[in-house]
Amino acid sequence: MSEIYNRVALIGLGLIASSMAYAMRRDGLARTITGTARSRETRDIVREIGFCDEVFDTAAEAVKDADLVVLAVPIGAMEALAREIAPHLKAGATVTDVGSVKRAVIDAVGPNLPNTVHFIPGHPLAGTEHSGPRSGFAELFENRWCILVPPEDGDAEAVSRLRALWEGMGSHVEMMEVDHHDLALAVTSHCPHLIAYTMVGVADDLRRVTDSEVIKYSAAGFRDFTRIAASDPTMWRDVFLNNKEATLEILGRFTEELFALQRAIRTGDGDHLFDYFTRTRAIRRGIIEAGQDTDAPNFGRGKAK
Amino acid sequence: MSEIYNRVALIGLGLIASSMAYAMRRDGLARTITGTARSRETRDIVREIGFCDEVFDTAAEAVKDADLVVLAVPIGAMEALAREIAPHLKAGATVTDVGSVKRAVIDAVGPNLPNTVHFIPGHPLAGTEHSGPRSGFAELFENRWCILVPPEDGDAEAVSRLRALWEGMGSHVEMMEVDHHDLALAVTSHCPHLIAYTMVGVADDLRRVTDSEVIKYSAAGFRDFTRIAASDPTMWRDVFLNNKEATLEILGRFTEELFALQRAIRTGDGDHLFDYFTRTRAIRRGIIEAGQDTDAPNFGRGKAK
Repeated sequence: MSEIYNRVALIGLGLIASSMAYAMRRDGLARTITGTARSRETRDIVREIGFCDEVFDTAAEAVKDADLVVLAVPIGAMEALAREIAPHLKAGATVTDVGSVKRAVIDAVGPNLPNTVHFIPGHPLAGTEHSGPRSGFAELFENRWCILVPPEDGDAEAVSRLRALWEGMGSHVEMMEVDHHDLALAVTSHCPHLIAYTMVGVADDLRRVTDSEVIKYSAAGFRDFTRIAASDPTMWRDVFLNNKEATLEILGRFTEELFALQRAIRTGDGDHLFDYFTRTRAIRRGIIEAGQDTDAPNFGRGKAK
Repeated sequence: MSEIYNRVALIGLGLIASSMAYAMRRDGLARTITGTARSRETRDIVREIGFCDEVFDTAAEAVKDADLVVLAVPIGAMEALAREIAPHLKAGATVTDVGSVKRAVIDAVGPNLPNTVHFIPGHPLAGTEHSGPRSGFAELFENRWCILVPPEDGDAEAVSRLRALWEGMGSHVEMMEVDHHDLALAVTSHCPHLIAYTMVGVADDLRRVTDSEVIKYSAAGFRDFTRIAASDPTMWRDVFLNNKEATLEILGRFTEELFALQRAIRTGDGDHLFDYFTRTRAIRRGIIEAGQDTDAPNFGRGKAK
């Protein structure tokens, strides 16, 4: 793989940025990688780990001369960050982000950037429940989707360079309209996260079942929820505050269907339950066929027969 | 490991029974394993795969001379099965089951068995989203819990033999009171399953986001739900119909908390969201410390850094 950007600045040095740094280095996609983070502790850790060529104390310094600036901070921090870096961006540079909501990021960032840069919002659909500069790994984006949401009048060459970077890191890239992105992600990511958080919270509240029991018996289904519900609280707070409309719409539908299933349980309507559960099974098969998960019977734990 | 039972009869030959057969064979825990299943197709498959020494057409034949009879059928089929095998059970034999609900199984099976056998209900907390005779593997129970719910006046020697079998297959065994089992499992397993089924159903209903989008972008959180929601529909229908009270209680609490989070989103109460999400993170850490999941940053996909 050959170099795509001369100088990449990573603003915010958590799971996504550190994984990008490892992936870009592995494949020589960027000549120089700079970075910065709000907390001194994070900056010191990254200086020690060394996945950036240089770590600066301020975003203004980090973006200087960068061809690509990646905003990898919680959505609530985007607007102030855009204002801070705007005077220091190189003309012709590309600015992108990795936020999970796109309309709110465009509204927060777009108006604050100079016309001399290309703003191409992005969203890599990849993550783990870990966060912080020590959580990154080069393979995070492999075989995962990255959605780009370029403006209609976006510079085609700038878009195709950014696309090449994500493909270089192993992702499949898809272009999408902003509001459609926010709705699709409310369904596939934001609402599942809120629901998982809620279920884990209920388990924690319930005094009649002890914490240690909840933990011991988690393999029976709950474990997958706790994995989701362990994701970064700041990031997720900002996702819900900034994708309010789509999230609330999907949660409304969810509650409606859950009530119908509750009623079926209460009234003993086994056919309703059976039909519902049969229908959802087909979706799982589609996901395995699409290569977004493995069909290994033991989920990769231990050896399969 | 040495032989624990001379002759084990598996009634119902799906994921759990086939995994038990592989585990018992690997460690020489049973001299002879017989089996039967309601459908001819399943019986023929098992004759072909060969994890049973002998496959019978009827449960009556399969249980003959067995020291241990394992009822591994959906909960709704337990009562009729108990009536069918009762006259054919050897005096002194142990009868157990692997159902996910215990009060309903005890009510359905207990009164129909002769006093000459030991009925020790059980529940291995292990599974995958796969079902049927081809889905089993010997490692399914390794490092997982198996809960036994023996009657108060249960035969101590029969209980400790059954315990030894589960431990021989790699499980940790725990004794529990019946109703406590049903409540604890409503929290850790039954409600998470219903919620996952619901969320997958909502995604499927939503015509504005296409099925292929839902599938493509599943890695963002939804994937873990589809895994849970792909479990056997008959088994799960019977779980909800037979653990009605505990399931509805927990769903009520879940809905209450979900509404509070929805309101926080609507009113923009970021502190409420942040505090909630921070609290749930701690539970995840507990699960990792308890060894019920791995902390590998990439969930075993590809190589970690």
